[in-house]
Amino acid sequence: MLEKIDLSKTITNGEYRKSEKVLKAKLGELQRKAWDLKIPVILVFEGWHVSGLAEDINRFILSLDPRGYSFHTMTKPCYEELLKPFIVRFWSRIPVRGKIAIFDRSWYSRSVIECLGKEKSEEEMGKCLEKINYFERQLADDEYLIIKFFLHISEKEHKERFKDSKKDYIPLIFDEYEKEARQDLDFVHNYNEYLPFVEKVLEKTDMPYAPWTIVEADNRSFATLKIMMTVIRALETSIERATRIPAEQTLKYLDMEIRGIPQLNNSILEKIDLSRKLDADEYKESKKLYQQKLTALQYELFKKKRPLVVVFEGWDAAGKGGDIYRLVENLNPRLYRVVPVGSPNDIEKAHHYLWRFCEAIPKAGNITIFDRSWYGRVLVERVEGFCSEEEWKRAYREINEFEEILTHAGAIVLKFWLHIDKETQLERFNSRQLDPEKKWKITTEDWRNRGRWEDYRIAADEMLQKTSTTNARWTVVESNDKRYSRIKVLKTVAEALEKELKK
Amino acid sequence: MLEKIDLSKTITNGEYRKSEKVLKAKLGELQRKAWDLKIPVILVFEGWHVSGLAEDINRFILSLDPRGYSFHTMTKPCYEELLKPFIVRFWSRIPVRGKIAIFDRSWYSRSVIECLGKEKSEEEMGKCLEKINYFERQLADDEYLIIKFFLHISEKEHKERFKDSKKDYIPLIFDEYEKEARQDLDFVHNYNEYLPFVEKVLEKTDMPYAPWTIVEADNRSFATLKIMMTVIRALETSIERATRIPAEQTLKYLDMEIRGIPQLNNSILEKIDLSRKLDADEYKESKKLYQQKLTALQYELFKKKRPLVVVFEGWDAAGKGGDIYRLVENLNPRLYRVVPVGSPNDIEKAHHYLWRFCEAIPKAGNITIFDRSWYGRVLVERVEGFCSEEEWKRAYREINEFEEILTHAGAIVLKFWLHIDKETQLERFNSRQLDPEKKWKITTEDWRNRGRWEDYRIAADEMLQKTSTTNARWTVVESNDKRYSRIKVLKTVAEALEKELKK
Repeated sequence: MLEKIDLSKTITNGEYRKSEKVLKAKLGELQRKAWDLKIPVILVFEGWHVSGLAEDINRFILSLDPRGYSFHTMTKPCYEELLKPFIVRFWSRIPVRGKIAIFDRSWYSRSVIECLGKEKSEEEMGKCLEKINYFERQLADDEYLIIKFFLHISEKEHKERFKDSKKDYIPLIFDEYEKEARQDLDFVHNYNEYLPFVEKVLEKTDMPYAPWTIVEADNRSFATLKIMMTVIRALETSIERATRIPAEQTLKYLDMEIRGIPQLNNSILEKIDLSRKLDADEYKESKKLYQQKLTALQYELFKKKRPLVVVFEGWDAAGKGGDIYRLVENLNPRLYRVVPVGSPNDIEKAHHYLWRFCEAIPKAGNITIFDRSWYGRVLVERVEGFCSEEEWKRAYREINEFEEILTHAGAIVLKFWLHIDKETQLERFNSRQLDPEKKWKITTEDWRNRGRWEDYRIAADEMLQKTSTTNARWTVVESNDKRYSRIKVLKTVAEALEKELKK
Repeated sequence: MLEKIDLSKTITNGEYRKSEKVLKAKLGELQRKAWDLKIPVILVFEGWHVSGLAEDINRFILSLDPRGYSFHTMTKPCYEELLKPFIVRFWSRIPVRGKIAIFDRSWYSRSVIECLGKEKSEEEMGKCLEKINYFERQLADDEYLIIKFFLHISEKEHKERFKDSKKDYIPLIFDEYEKEARQDLDFVHNYNEYLPFVEKVLEKTDMPYAPWTIVEADNRSFATLKIMMTVIRALETSIERATRIPAEQTLKYLDMEIRGIPQLNNSILEKIDLSRKLDADEYKESKKLYQQKLTALQYELFKKKRPLVVVFEGWDAAGKGGDIYRLVENLNPRLYRVVPVGSPNDIEKAHHYLWRFCEAIPKAGNITIFDRSWYGRVLVERVEGFCSEEEWKRAYREINEFEEILTHAGAIVLKFWLHIDKETQLERFNSRQLDPEKKWKITTEDWRNRGRWEDYRIAADEMLQKTSTTNARWTVVESNDKRYSRIKVLKTVAEALEKELKK
C-alpha cells in the first residue's frame, strides 16, 4: 500500500492558509451534527517517527470543540495493563456516542509494531492482528465511524528530520524508560527494514468498515489538508447514512434460520435431569473437600499468573448468589472479585455493550466472578426487545470473539447456566415474598421475566448452542436441589483449574 | 492508642458461629437501608502484616450484597499514578452514594507508612498526614461515612504468624516487585521499631468524623465479631441521622458574615479598568513572541516534570474559548489537554463534587487547561441553588485545600477570571445569534445567567477574595477587547512559567 505513493505532492503555506478557514468551519459544523446524531467517531493516527504526527494532530484538533473530543496518547502500557489482554485498554477508551476519540498512536503501534525486533513470533503477531480486526469490526457493527491515518514520508525526509529531532524530542515513552526509548529510536532509524513490515500490517487491517488513508507527509501543509478533507468526507458520508430513513437500510446479515419447524431445533435444556439431589452429609463433606482444593488452587493460579473468569447466568431464583457465596467462601479477597451486572446506566448505554465489562476483566493471577454478564445481550435484551434483532444475532459471534481474546491472553473462562423448572421458581418466589429478610430480592422484573418463560428458554437454548466454544464451554447446572447445584459448581471449577494448571 | 489495648480477649469459634447468622442478617438489612438513603460508606482496613486482614475482610464481605460494595486492594501505585499527587488515586476510588467502598490497605499504608525507613523526612510525612486529614474531612462534610480499622496483634503472635506465613503468602506487592516485597517483610518484622510510628499516625488521624477502631486480632473470631458489630453500630447511627427531619439538624458551621452593610464588602471586580485595548500590530507581534516562548517552556516543564493546571472562569461570551485556542496553538498535544466542564452527569452527581476532576489532574510534565472548573460550586451552583448554602460556604476552604494538594505535589496552578461588562456581553450574544456558524454557542442557560448578573458578580467577587491563595493566585483579565485579553493570558502564563521553572 505504500509503494505507489507519490511523496512529492506539495502545497504552499499560503494555499493552505487560504483553505484552512473554510475547512475548520466545515469540520466544526460536522462535529456538531455528528454529536446531535450520536455518531461516535474514532480517529487513529499512525506514521513514522518524525512524520510530524503531533504537529498535524494539533492543527487538526484546533478546529474541534473541546467538549466533543478526547485525546489519547498511547504510551507503553503500565504494569496493571500488562496483566490484561492488550486490547482491553483500547476498549476502555472508546468514545461515548456522539463524541470523537483521537488516538495518537494506537493498538497498531502499541501491539503489533512493538513486536518487531522483539522475541514475539510471527504467529503471535498474527494473533494480534486478528484481535485488532475483531475489535474494529465490532465497533463498526455498532455504528462507530473509524478513520485511520498513516503518515508516510520518504527515506530521505526521514533521515533529515531525524537529525533535527534529537534536540527537543518528547518521547512517547517517558523518562523512566529513557533507555528503551533510545532503543526505539535506533530501531526506527532503519527505515528500510521497517517498511515491508508496516506495509504488511496496513494490508492486513485495511477493511471496508475501517480503511487506511495514507497521508503524504513530506510536505506538512499538504498533510494537514489531506487529514482535514478526509475527516470531512467521512463525517459527511456517515451523517448522510445516519439520517436516511430506516426502511431504506438493508439488512446487513443473511438470515439463516429455519422457521416453523420446531423439531429441527435442538433443545439442550429440555434434556436436563432436574431430579438430581444430594443429602446433607454428602453435601457437607464435598463442600469441605472442594473449598479446600480451591483455596490451594487460587494460590496456584496466582503463581502461574493465569486469570480466571467465571460467568453465572440462569433463571431468576435459580440460586446464583448462593452458589457464588460457596465458591468464594474460602478465597482470598485480594485476588477475587464478584461483579453483579444489572441494567446498564446512562454512560454505559452510550457505549458499545461490551465496553462496561472492560474494567472488570481480571488481571493475571486474579479471579472475576460475573453474576450475570455480557450474555444479557442475547437473553434479556433479546427477549424484551432492548436491542434490535440484527444486534442480538451478531452478538453470538461478538461474544465468542470477546472470550477468545480472554483465553488467548491466558485466561480460563468457565460459564454456568443454573437451570430450574417453572414450579421450583414459583415456590422460591413465594417463599421469598413471605420472608421479610428476603423480600427485597423479588422485584416486578422477576415476575415479568417469569411471564415470558418460553421466550427465555428459547433464547437460553440458542445461547448455549452458539457460544459453547472450545475456548469457553458452558456447564448446565441442575439447580432444583440447591445442594447439588452448589457442589456441581465447586467441583467443576476445581477440576477445570486442576486440569488447566497442570498444562 | 495501642498501649492499653488488652489483646487477651477471646471468644470461641462456637460462640462466634452462634452470633454470626444474626449479625450477617442485620448487616444485610442495614446495607440495604443505607443504599436506599444514598449514604456512601468508606471502610478502611489497616493493620500489621499477618494480622489476618484478608481473612477477616472476606468473612465480613460475605455478609454484604455484592451489588452494593466495591473492594480495593491498594498495592503500590503504578507509574502513571506516581506522576500525580498521591491522594488522587484514592479520590478517584470513593464510592458512589449509597454504596460501600472497602479499602484493603489505604492512603495510610500507601503513603505515610511507606515513608518509614525510606529517605522521606518527617516534614514530608507531616504533609502527607495533613493531606489525608483534608481528604477525610472533605468526605465527611459531604456525608460520607468513614469507618477505619486497625488490626492489632501482640509481638508474640506477630512473631509466630510470621513463621507460618512464608509458605502461601500473597504479597500485596506483586511479583514484579518481589524483591521489594521481601524488603517490606524484613522491615515489618521489626515490630518494636514500627510500633511508636504506627501509634503516632493513628493519633494524628483519629478524628471525630473518621475515628479509628482498634481491633484486637490475636483471636480471629473476636476480631471478625468486633468488625461486624462496629460497622453495624456506625451504620445505625448514620441511618438514624439521615432519617431525622432537616429542621432538627443544627448548622455545622458558624456564620461569620456581616449582613446589611454592603460598604463593608470589598469588590475587586468593580475596580477593573475594562477600557484596555491592543491594536492589531501590537497583538500580532506579542502573540508570536509569547507563543514561541510557550513552546520552549512546555519542553522545559516536561523536562523538569512539573505539572501545570490552568483554570479559566468568567462571564459567558467573555472569550474563554478564544483565549484557550491561542494558548495551545503551538503546544504539543501529547502533553496538554483542554477539559471543558459542563453540568455533571448522573454518575458525577452521585459522588463528591471534586471527584470528577481527578481523572483530568495532569501528570508530572503535563498541562491541563480547565474551561470552567471546580469553581462552579461557588458560582453557578451557589447562584442557582444547585447546592445548599452550607455546601458552597465550606467549598472555599475545600478548594483551597484541593489546590494546595496540587501545588505541594509540584504543580503550577494559574487561574483566570475573564471579565467583561454587561453591554459587551449583550453585543456578543446578539452577534452570535445572527451568525449561523456561532449560533449553537448560545443557549437558554446563557440568557438565564445574564438575568442574574449581579448575583454572579457578588459570587465571583467573593470567590476571587477567598480563593486567591499564595499557592494559587487569580488573575483578572480585562476582556472587553479580545486582543488585550488573549495577550494578557499568554503573557501571564509565560511569565509565571519562567519564574517557576527558574527555581
